[in-house]
Amino acid sequence: MSTGAKIEPRTLKGFRDYPPALMIPREHLLQTARTVYRRYGFLPIDTPALEYAEILLGKGGAESDKLVYRFTDHGGRDVALRFDLTVPFARFAAQHAGQLGTPFKRYAMGPVWRGENTGHGRYREFWQCDFDTIGTVSVASDAETLLVIHDLLDALGVGGFSIRVNHRQVLNGLLEKQGLAAKSVEVLRALDKLPKVGRDAVVAEMAATAGATTTQAESILTLAGLEGEPAEILNRLEKELEGSARGLEGVTRLREVLTVAGQAGVAPGRVSLDLSIARGLDYYTGLIFESFLDKLPGIGSVCSGGRYDDLAGLYTKQTLPGVGASLGVDRLLAALEELGLLAGKAVTADLLVLQFEAGHLGSCYGLARKLHAAGVGAEVFPEARKLGQQLQQAEKRGFRLAAFAGPDEREKGLWKLKDLSNREEQLVPEAELATAALARLGRA
Amino acid sequence: MSTGAKIEPRTLKGFRDYPPALMIPREHLLQTARTVYRRYGFLPIDTPALEYAEILLGKGGAESDKLVYRFTDHGGRDVALRFDLTVPFARFAAQHAGQLGTPFKRYAMGPVWRGENTGHGRYREFWQCDFDTIGTVSVASDAETLLVIHDLLDALGVGGFSIRVNHRQVLNGLLEKQGLAAKSVEVLRALDKLPKVGRDAVVAEMAATAGATTTQAESILTLAGLEGEPAEILNRLEKELEGSARGLEGVTRLREVLTVAGQAGVAPGRVSLDLSIARGLDYYTGLIFESFLDKLPGIGSVCSGGRYDDLAGLYTKQTLPGVGASLGVDRLLAALEELGLLAGKAVTADLLVLQFEAGHLGSCYGLARKLHAAGVGAEVFPEARKLGQQLQQAEKRGFRLAAFAGPDEREKGLWKLKDLSNREEQLVPEAELATAALARLGRA
Repeated sequence: MSTGAKIEPRTLKGFRDYPPALMIPREHLLQTARTVYRRYGFLPIDTPALEYAEILLGKGGAESDKLVYRFTDHGGRDVALRFDLTVPFARFAAQHAGQLGTPFKRYAMGPVWRGENTGHGRYREFWQCDFDTIGTVSVASDAETLLVIHDLLDALGVGGFSIRVNHRQVLNGLLEKQGLAAKSVEVLRALDKLPKVGRDAVVAEMAATAGATTTQAESILTLAGLEGEPAEILNRLEKELEGSARGLEGVTRLREVLTVAGQAGVAPGRVSLDLSIARGLDYYTGLIFESFLDKLPGIGSVCSGGRYDDLAGLYTKQTLPGVGASLGVDRLLAALEELGLLAGKAVTADLLVLQFEAGHLGSCYGLARKLHAAGVGAEVFPEARKLGQQLQQAEKRGFRLAAFAGPDEREKGLWKLKDLSNREEQLVPEAELATAALARLGRA
Repeated sequence: MSTGAKIEPRTLKGFRDYPPALMIPREHLLQTARTVYRRYGFLPIDTPALEYAEILLGKGGAESDKLVYRFTDHGGRDVALRFDLTVPFARFAAQHAGQLGTPFKRYAMGPVWRGENTGHGRYREFWQCDFDTIGTVSVASDAETLLVIHDLLDALGVGGFSIRVNHRQVLNGLLEKQGLAAKSVEVLRALDKLPKVGRDAVVAEMAATAGATTTQAESILTLAGLEGEPAEILNRLEKELEGSARGLEGVTRLREVLTVAGQAGVAPGRVSLDLSIARGLDYYTGLIFESFLDKLPGIGSVCSGGRYDDLAGLYTKQTLPGVGASLGVDRLLAALEELGLLAGKAVTADLLVLQFEAGHLGSCYGLARKLHAAGVGAEVFPEARKLGQQLQQAEKRGFRLAAFAGPDEREKGLWKLKDLSNREEQLVPEAELATAALARLGRA
């Protein structure tokens, strides 16, 4: 027993614990991502949470620098916690690309930190889960990025979704034709707000920040709003972009990427064209995309990214073009919760071995280890409480199966296997228990 | 192309990147641990990297407080980076135990930060991988802790190993009988250094810090050095401890734990008694243990821990006894490297699909996705370079298999499957390629 004044157990504002009910789905999500990334040959890397401040700062503008956790360490160094996984990857690539060779495909998962306002369910520590291909400008790497996102969202079982793609050069070409090329950043920034603020506000912002006439703004919004068969939209764009070499290059690239996706087996409609997608970040130069869940369009994009010309220009003379995407881990977890896909079940084993009476713990663990070897998760109840109490715990915690043996069963080498989903009981010889359990679990 | 002055791409002193050759084994290690922990019913949790400094500080003494990364955040809060996973778990348990119920079994994995001297391959950021059972003093939870470590080291394939156990009350009982009970901390601290400094230095330290006579010190060292059958050592200890109730309790507990482990199928010799293990940390009160690899005893314990009376006494009046262990992730990785178990292979997919010529990327990805569905990792070479060049890359990077189709094969719906381990080639219909690949990989 401890006495004395207690320190209040609490987390920092904007930080949170992951109890099992939230952590089991997060592990599932990250493991699914890992499996899909690996299948396509992406390799895992990790970088430190702390870096020299000069490595991290000045990459996202003064506004974003203010959010960075920065301090002086024991050795008087100016250090900071990473605020994303992209900037550390750029530093990593500059440092190691020569040794690793290119093209290089990597994935990385981990927490990042930003001292943001904590409204709207935003956290100051949240997980990112990125993958990128650097050192190639090939169509393959663009198409593959979409295939990875497709297969990942498919594997997560979140229902229907759409990956909406666009191309920066197509946007730039359209602006060029409208005489707004010099103001492209301002125009695209306004366009990016379309789903949030609506058409009129975007026209107003384009006038205010880019000096666009209403006709110019409307024309851009009309093209951005085109819907329908990608092939038809691309034909229309080809006409609109006549004379803009880079714009037409963008159209060709989009056509190739969509063709490869279709030929590789992606169902029509899963990947669509959406010219209203601009992506806020200034460094995208080619393909850009966002992904939305059919059932929860309101939560925004759950996986976004694009192609960039030069990942690590701040650290190296080697030009490293690439394409990549970032999975919104916490946003997807929130989506899974909203869709009721997070079973409240907080259990990692399939079966609970009950202690019928004290003094036979060795045989309980002996059984558990045999079940483990056969792929059945088996936990042993730690105390020889009344059997009814142990069964109650098994049900409450969400175990599917329970097994126990009284003196009669023990003498004959039998176990009683109880299916908690329908209360059925069967007597099974120890050597056959794993098979019986797997059958009950539908994994036979 | 970027111009201008470059920022030198470098990590902080004492921090390191994990390139794929190191990260693939780390993922394997953590996934193996996760699998074993889950089988036994341990549940995953996570806590933030940053906490209020008052939560973290003062737990390991002034010396350890100095190593903590501590700073003032944007909101003027006194915050710190966690230096282990135990203190945050104590805070977590105090905050959530009521809701989660006890006994509660959790595992946690993640980086921790200590501003240590960086000699001897020590890092300032390193991974921990802990599991604990709290809210029960049962024999089951002690025995289970050893079974988990056993099964984990077994699953990692590191060869022979031994888990050496001791009990704090046995040590305390022996000190009591020697009249050194009041100086137990000093005596045990000296004893803990035995493998590093040798017998004479320990006797000298016991004299200096605990006022032990040479006879007292020698007597403790003799008992601590007992080797042989655990049952025999326990019988001897029972005699030595006559009259010390708590010491005899320790003997009984050790006997029970070793019996359960043996009955559960642990081979004799894998778990042994070692009375010289004292464990530096002051909060252990019962079972204590360390684990050593037969082939690399010099690297020290790869998994250590023990039983404690009260995890979260600083934060709550609820007494939470528990038992747990911490896996030395970076130490084990270094061991795997030294044992040559880290194949230099930096590849996550099994097969590389080559582009025989440009214009057929869709069929390459179509094949890759069919292989993925069958459990074969398949990467597509991103550019239609010369076939020989692509094959060379496949070999260099360590792929086991390659597949490609020229115009003749394409026309007939065939793929050429090349086994890079023996250069064998076979022609296979697309529908049968997954089966053929799995057979080559020995996973049929």
